[in-house]
Amino acid sequence: MPLFDLPPAQLRSYESDLTEPADFDAFWDATIAEARAFPLAATFMPVENMLTVIDSFDVTFAGFGGDPVKGWLHLPANRARGEKLPVVVQYIGYSGGRGLVQQDTGWAQAGYAHFIMDTRGQGYGGLLGDTPDPHASAGGTAHPGLMTRGIDSREDYYYRRAYVDSFRAIEAAQAHPEIDPGRVIVSGISQGGGLTIAASGLAAGRLDGVIAVMPDVPFLQDFPRSIDIAGRGPYPEIATYLKRRRHDYDAALEVLNYFDGVHLARRCTAPALYSAAGQDDICPPSTVYGSFNAYGSAAPVQPGKDIEYYRFNNHEGGQEHQWIRQLRYVADLLAG
Amino acid sequence: MPLFDLPPAQLRSYESDLTEPADFDAFWDATIAEARAFPLAATFMPVENMLTVIDSFDVTFAGFGGDPVKGWLHLPANRARGEKLPVVVQYIGYSGGRGLVQQDTGWAQAGYAHFIMDTRGQGYGGLLGDTPDPHASAGGTAHPGLMTRGIDSREDYYYRRAYVDSFRAIEAAQAHPEIDPGRVIVSGISQGGGLTIAASGLAAGRLDGVIAVMPDVPFLQDFPRSIDIAGRGPYPEIATYLKRRRHDYDAALEVLNYFDGVHLARRCTAPALYSAAGQDDICPPSTVYGSFNAYGSAAPVQPGKDIEYYRFNNHEGGQEHQWIRQLRYVADLLAG
Amino acid sequence: MPLFDLPPAQLRSYESDLTEPADFDAFWDATIAEARAFPLAATFMPVENMLTVIDSFDVTFAGFGGDPVKGWLHLPANRARGEKLPVVVQYIGYSGGRGLVQQDTGWAQAGYAHFIMDTRGQGYGGLLGDTPDPHASAGGTAHPGLMTRGIDSREDYYYRRAYVDSFRAIEAAQAHPEIDPGRVIVSGISQGGGLTIAASGLAAGRLDGVIAVMPDVPFLQDFPRSIDIAGRGPYPEIATYLKRRRHDYDAALEVLNYFDGVHLARRCTAPALYSAAGQDDICPPSTVYGSFNAYGSAAPVQPGKDIEYYRFNNHEGGQEHQWIRQLRYVADLLAG
Amino acid sequence: MPLFDLPPAQLRSYESDLTEPADFDAFWDATIAEARAFPLAATFMPVENMLTVIDSFDVTFAGFGGDPVKGWLHLPANRARGEKLPVVVQYIGYSGGRGLVQQDTGWAQAGYAHFIMDTRGQGYGGLLGDTPDPHASAGGTAHPGLMTRGIDSREDYYYRRAYVDSFRAIEAAQAHPEIDPGRVIVSGISQGGGLTIAASGLAAGRLDGVIAVMPDVPFLQDFPRSIDIAGRGPYPEIATYLKRRRHDYDAALEVLNYFDGVHLARRCTAPALYSAAGQDDICPPSTVYGSFNAYGSAAPVQPGKDIEYYRFNNHEGGQEHQWIRQLRYVADLLAG
Amino acid sequence: MPLFDLPPAQLRSYESDLTEPADFDAFWDATIAEARAFPLAATFMPVENMLTVIDSFDVTFAGFGGDPVKGWLHLPANRARGEKLPVVVQYIGYSGGRGLVQQDTGWAQAGYAHFIMDTRGQGYGGLLGDTPDPHASAGGTAHPGLMTRGIDSREDYYYRRAYVDSFRAIEAAQAHPEIDPGRVIVSGISQGGGLTIAASGLAAGRLDGVIAVMPDVPFLQDFPRSIDIAGRGPYPEIATYLKRRRHDYDAALEVLNYFDGVHLARRCTAPALYSAAGQDDICPPSTVYGSFNAYGSAAPVQPGKDIEYYRFNNHEGGQEHQWIRQLRYVADLLAG
Amino acid sequence: MPLFDLPPAQLRSYESDLTEPADFDAFWDATIAEARAFPLAATFMPVENMLTVIDSFDVTFAGFGGDPVKGWLHLPANRARGEKLPVVVQYIGYSGGRGLVQQDTGWAQAGYAHFIMDTRGQGYGGLLGDTPDPHASAGGTAHPGLMTRGIDSREDYYYRRAYVDSFRAIEAAQAHPEIDPGRVIVSGISQGGGLTIAASGLAAGRLDGVIAVMPDVPFLQDFPRSIDIAGRGPYPEIATYLKRRRHDYDAALEVLNYFDGVHLARRCTAPALYSAAGQDDICPPSTVYGSFNAYGSAAPVQPGKDIEYYRFNNHEGGQEHQWIRQLRYVADLLAG
Repeated sequence: MPLFDLPPAQLRSYESDLTEPADFDAFWDATIAEARAFPLAATFMPVENMLTVIDSFDVTFAGFGGDPVKGWLHLPANRARGEKLPVVVQYIGYSGGRGLVQQDTGWAQAGYAHFIMDTRGQGYGGLLGDTPDPHASAGGTAHPGLMTRGIDSREDYYYRRAYVDSFRAIEAAQAHPEIDPGRVIVSGISQGGGLTIAASGLAAGRLDGVIAVMPDVPFLQDFPRSIDIAGRGPYPEIATYLKRRRHDYDAALEVLNYFDGVHLARRCTAPALYSAAGQDDICPPSTVYGSFNAYGSAAPVQPGKDIEYYRFNNHEGGQEHQWIRQLRYVADLLAG
Repeated sequence: MPLFDLPPAQLRSYESDLTEPADFDAFWDATIAEARAFPLAATFMPVENMLTVIDSFDVTFAGFGGDPVKGWLHLPANRARGEKLPVVVQYIGYSGGRGLVQQDTGWAQAGYAHFIMDTRGQGYGGLLGDTPDPHASAGGTAHPGLMTRGIDSREDYYYRRAYVDSFRAIEAAQAHPEIDPGRVIVSGISQGGGLTIAASGLAAGRLDGVIAVMPDVPFLQDFPRSIDIAGRGPYPEIATYLKRRRHDYDAALEVLNYFDGVHLARRCTAPALYSAAGQDDICPPSTVYGSFNAYGSAAPVQPGKDIEYYRFNNHEGGQEHQWIRQLRYVADLLAG
Repeated sequence: MPLFDLPPAQLRSYESDLTEPADFDAFWDATIAEARAFPLAATFMPVENMLTVIDSFDVTFAGFGGDPVKGWLHLPANRARGEKLPVVVQYIGYSGGRGLVQQDTGWAQAGYAHFIMDTRGQGYGGLLGDTPDPHASAGGTAHPGLMTRGIDSREDYYYRRAYVDSFRAIEAAQAHPEIDPGRVIVSGISQGGGLTIAASGLAAGRLDGVIAVMPDVPFLQDFPRSIDIAGRGPYPEIATYLKRRRHDYDAALEVLNYFDGVHLARRCTAPALYSAAGQDDICPPSTVYGSFNAYGSAAPVQPGKDIEYYRFNNHEGGQEHQWIRQLRYVADLLAG
Repeated sequence: MPLFDLPPAQLRSYESDLTEPADFDAFWDATIAEARAFPLAATFMPVENMLTVIDSFDVTFAGFGGDPVKGWLHLPANRARGEKLPVVVQYIGYSGGRGLVQQDTGWAQAGYAHFIMDTRGQGYGGLLGDTPDPHASAGGTAHPGLMTRGIDSREDYYYRRAYVDSFRAIEAAQAHPEIDPGRVIVSGISQGGGLTIAASGLAAGRLDGVIAVMPDVPFLQDFPRSIDIAGRGPYPEIATYLKRRRHDYDAALEVLNYFDGVHLARRCTAPALYSAAGQDDICPPSTVYGSFNAYGSAAPVQPGKDIEYYRFNNHEGGQEHQWIRQLRYVADLLAG
Repeated sequence: MPLFDLPPAQLRSYESDLTEPADFDAFWDATIAEARAFPLAATFMPVENMLTVIDSFDVTFAGFGGDPVKGWLHLPANRARGEKLPVVVQYIGYSGGRGLVQQDTGWAQAGYAHFIMDTRGQGYGGLLGDTPDPHASAGGTAHPGLMTRGIDSREDYYYRRAYVDSFRAIEAAQAHPEIDPGRVIVSGISQGGGLTIAASGLAAGRLDGVIAVMPDVPFLQDFPRSIDIAGRGPYPEIATYLKRRRHDYDAALEVLNYFDGVHLARRCTAPALYSAAGQDDICPPSTVYGSFNAYGSAAPVQPGKDIEYYRFNNHEGGQEHQWIRQLRYVADLLAG
Repeated sequence: MPLFDLPPAQLRSYESDLTEPADFDAFWDATIAEARAFPLAATFMPVENMLTVIDSFDVTFAGFGGDPVKGWLHLPANRARGEKLPVVVQYIGYSGGRGLVQQDTGWAQAGYAHFIMDTRGQGYGGLLGDTPDPHASAGGTAHPGLMTRGIDSREDYYYRRAYVDSFRAIEAAQAHPEIDPGRVIVSGISQGGGLTIAASGLAAGRLDGVIAVMPDVPFLQDFPRSIDIAGRGPYPEIATYLKRRRHDYDAALEVLNYFDGVHLARRCTAPALYSAAGQDDICPPSTVYGSFNAYGSAAPVQPGKDIEYYRFNNHEGGQEHQWIRQLRYVADLLAG
């Protein structure tokens, strides 16, 4: 497919022109406080995974509204007992859930604690899920999918719940006795990348311990541009919804502005490794660069940041190559 | 598109081989009883429609679980006061809602009361809707759309609620003082046709007054065959869901069997006018004929029935031609 | 679908760079004079429509070359006898005809006289038609469809006949005894919008009584740009024809320039309400704005004008929402 | 593309179940008589073709209704003067015309007279044309294309004119002084193949000299089956027309039955070489075999016949391979 | 997508009607003997994989013609030293290679030796590869891809080399000092499944130690049927090649018959677990069942066999679910 | 399809910004010298073509590495004996070969010697071929097709061999006793156009006799831009390869830079007639104009040049119209 977004040179200097709501931080302060009013209640039940080199645990913790959110925790079976492990908290792409217990143990194979968060109300796509979204607005007349669920109000919007879950997942990982709460790496692809940025941005000033942020081809960045130019994937759910709800454009954009990854990226404080793909028509590269170029700019100290650009790839991005890039990045970071 | 289903001669004699659950009637007896435990509470508020020849009313009544369900009622402005009108109760196709008040006044133009029921949780497609589906299972990990919502149990399955709403809509129409409760015609296209059959089948033995049943290219008939052969539209939501939930086929089919239009069609007692389309890959003609050929066979007296077959049409079916066919059918019926 | 035409801000100021032929008015003066040499011969035969609130009439009048052109006239059954009604003259989208008599009575339901003109040689698409195009050039080696029929000469070009028919339709409506000839509103979607502009532009200085012009997503505007950028619909018939007739580009554009809606829009004198759709790849929004921005600029007094822009819609445009917009626009206009 | 029609073994024995109209021969007797009432008026004007080995002529002759029909005649420049050449009369595929003079000289290169007939009202597709279809019905509300032009009556149907032109083309070729009227080979691909069969079938008993018939993947055979199963190409024009004109199926099929190649093939008397393609979804192989298996069965003596089957080809059929097959077939036939 | 192949009940009893060449075994005896004339020369070089729980080795061994073939060997880092491990030999799907060293360590995670063979001349698709196909026929005028490379002769056909490589891969695995040569499980998906069957069938009577055979949605089974019905994937390379090489069908099928998995499956002697997918249009389920139903029928003792059928899946088949099924199958088998 | 590349006015002035390798000429000097070390060994065997006006010869000559390359030579049968003919050397489009002997005799019909070169390793597409590519790198892990074969090094890259073959084809044509070596016209479409430019560019300063260069919609021009914007055809083979080989972009572009037609076009010294097509998404018009605008700029004297632009055509370009344009161009040139 021919290039449809900005060429590489323009991407590098592209600045999103989004303006954040005046009460953005107040909204999230209140939201996080409301969530923390529920006990975290993180539990880790050992589970048979048929693997001899990985120990796995079925995780449950209280997310938004105290709703139970599922996850997996994988630890290398040959870990040194008594030592606390750094942890990689991983979020999942749109439509997927935490999957079967054996499906992804990558970071545990590399010697880390590997924590995978299930995404509420998803898990019908490539990866199975086990966490419902028991919120009253779930049965509204939204376009099929999650993108317009509760879009009528910032309180009800689906990603308010998913962002809080992502934040609480870090707290849940930190609660495990074999995990070092001061060495949390957050990571994810596509929606997983968007949740990575969201969790890290919400953690800034509210939760310590995040030392690296690794969003790949992240979703949920720069909504106004994304819904105008993305040709496939979940962004068009919003465009299609507004195609019918012809008069709701301004109101919907106002709600989405509280959830835009660009604003959250600005607040992040830990070093970051992004990736973007030149032919990506699901999460267009300009929207990823809009986030990357803003990343950390509102932090007390601008953190280090780097990005891999995959010129001919669509939304699959760097795949195994990016994972190796991340393995090295984290190893170097921890080696100091 | 070349013919992909049975040729006309075979359609005429095609018999579905579905076996109904032993407790089918018991399930629906209990379901209707539970619904009737809520007061119907039908209200009709006059609404400005900018039309000089039609009077319109914004309808609300208690559907499944007592949930408020919306609708429109249109009456010809030049009706004779003091005379009760026959009513056409109309159900809407998948994804649509009751629409804007002016959008469809056809039967009222022809001199009937015209009652349009909104479909809960829909209204995101071609026609806007105003009725949410406030059921706890709405936020589960179903495939996007309504077809697999709550498919884990016959109690939670979405169409249990939609079928009850459709049944209650007849009662709501009958509650209006200008409507003759003994002359109810039910009608609808696609999902609207499926709800037509459902409401009529549930009415058999439980509610008097239905005198004609007019399903066009009806959906929700013969699920096992439909999900195997339908290439587009909502049936594939189920196939796609089962593509991921590989081990849930038997359980899902067992639930669906309580909602199959073929079983409900068998129980209908009023005369029927169906339509089917030879190239329909959304509601394949064999599944329509499977329903039509079973129609009324379990009634005390086999009612009259007729079907129009549109050889080269896809799911659009007969459109304006079928409506004229129906206008004549109803006029003849009422003329006796 | 991602935005493929100009973004909203640029649309608002977009000016077509078309130059009109020097003898544009002379050509149309001669053409209208030639048409008026035939008696209008408008007849209105009552027709059974199975509707109790609308009276319908089968219309015939002499169009281009005196050829009989068909139409429908709908009047509200409860109209005050003796009062003359304002009339909405409606033109039909490409490939369609006047349809069945019951198919569209919208404006009559709202209390107006509603006059629908059949389009010659069309009626094979979504709406049936009854008016042939009995012109000698119809059997030439044009690309299938109407767009290149007679494109060899401005005298033979299909739209010369269709534009004249549209002009004469206004005269035919004005000839009805229950219609007020001084209150004619013209309206149509797509090709219907193009004929709306054509009829109004030709009426300027030649026919009184047009008081409002309401083209939706109009076709036939700015041919050179349209055939370069439209990806679907009838404009590509011309591009495909010229793909084979590689040396006929200049000659074809010269003929089309006599039929360009942009030139006709400039001449219009009545207030206008347009609509355009941001994703419209059949009638691209820049070609609609090119017409809108020129509208009325050559009138003695610049008439009022307004436009609705539907950001995420393709050629379906505003649909029921635009109709309500029009109902209000006309009501306000008549209320003065 | 997977096999969508009958497998090879069944093709070989497939019999069309078409029944011909009782007055089939009477209809065509009258039609041919009517055509012959016009003088043939064949003219051959030398034309510059920029080729040194081929002499070309611009042909005009009187077809149906005496309308001028164009063609090319190519003769090998190095032919022996005074000897009469066998001639290959070639008809063109749907949408094409005779093309530019240099485009196809194949049979003349091989030493034959090569006569190419233009097809009236076509020439907008792959090959340019120069012959209009000046018939009153051409401007009717047919579906775009030629397939439904005049389908309301057997007198007006487009192929009545095209078949007569094809018959008259043989007479025109025979009229040239350097052509041997007793050695006429007729040939064509797709629609050209259908016209080949039509011209030969009409020639049977009415015109001498046809000694070989070579239809490749012929079109216009077994209409009822073709319009049911063809997925692309011109047959679907009829299906699409009937999709709108829902009540005209029987009437249209009755008209088409006078033009079905299967009936004309039965009457042919000269040896034939067909071809069919296993994946052909424009002219499905079963419809070709339906014609081939009927070929010559109504002749006084069953003529020889052969067919090439191209298993994995779509409508392109055998292309250059089939031409070589024909070169050999004709050479052998003439060698006796 | 609607069902396009046989329904489940017919699949279970479907028998391929292929007849094998008389000298099938002689051909392969000679081929294997020729290959074994080269020293196996298997080497295992430790390689850094950045994983702490898996030890990985870069494998090279002599395949067909003594050409170096690459692979990976993964061993669990926490294995008991001195004990020999059962090994899973895995072959890769069409277009892929062995991938990066960290990409798939699944069976090693489960405690087995995990041996992955690179496929010569592939590795341009989803998984990178490192093994060229240095055979003289590689530069012939084949259709792009491997399927028609050398199809002119059974000696040169590409899969002669790939099958021999697959056989030699078992011998290479058995040569490792930490692997138990008497407990070899062979496995693969799609082409990997075809190579699984090929290696096992060639091993029968020629090589001991294969104790389980696990082909998923195997490719290379029943060529004549596959190239007739497969709509996507590599089988159509052959159909497309024969579409141009119209006269080579019989010759090509004769060559392919020496490589048909159905003949090789018949000869297998170890227990088998297959999978097939009901909507698979790359490796249609009937061709998989044709192989499965023949499996082991020519063995001295019919081995046990089982198959999983995924009704709504296309070529992705059972994915993670089938892997778990295999984990259990192998565990049970080894537990005896 | 809407315009996707630059509009006409910008094309006319478009300059490619490619920089050629410093040792470009040295590389090709060495390559040509190496090729000429093999005897040309051109042979011309008479072949039966079943045509009476054309004499055809089966050609073989030594191409790159001395490998035998095939071709056809056609001469007009009625040529004046003893006179030497100008020759048109023609190269073939991607995937095709020289075809069957009768397939294209166009230039011989016009009185020229017509020499068609087979393309090594191709001939699997529209035209059959007979020349393998017996190079060791042919079996590497390239993406299917020829575009990435040997792309690892400039010595092994496929087009090094194909360009040398094209150069040697001129020498082979010149070796025929009935051909005038001082009047060679080179011509070809798409890849044939690219080889036309390559052969002419290599001939500059190395081989006399080329008097006209006629590339149509040429391929192989401006690789960096082409692989970024071409949506179909062979350029995307490179993009797809680099999509997997994510780190090889710079290295691949460095190799391709030795084969870029833009550099070779600069060196050409004979008059040129190009063509380009406005909708061409296989060989985008800007890449053709990039070559055309550079053409001859490095020659001692800037040769004449002209280009035809086909506004609405995709890669089919001008077809028969361009051939006539060429016939006239050559005739005028030779007439002097």
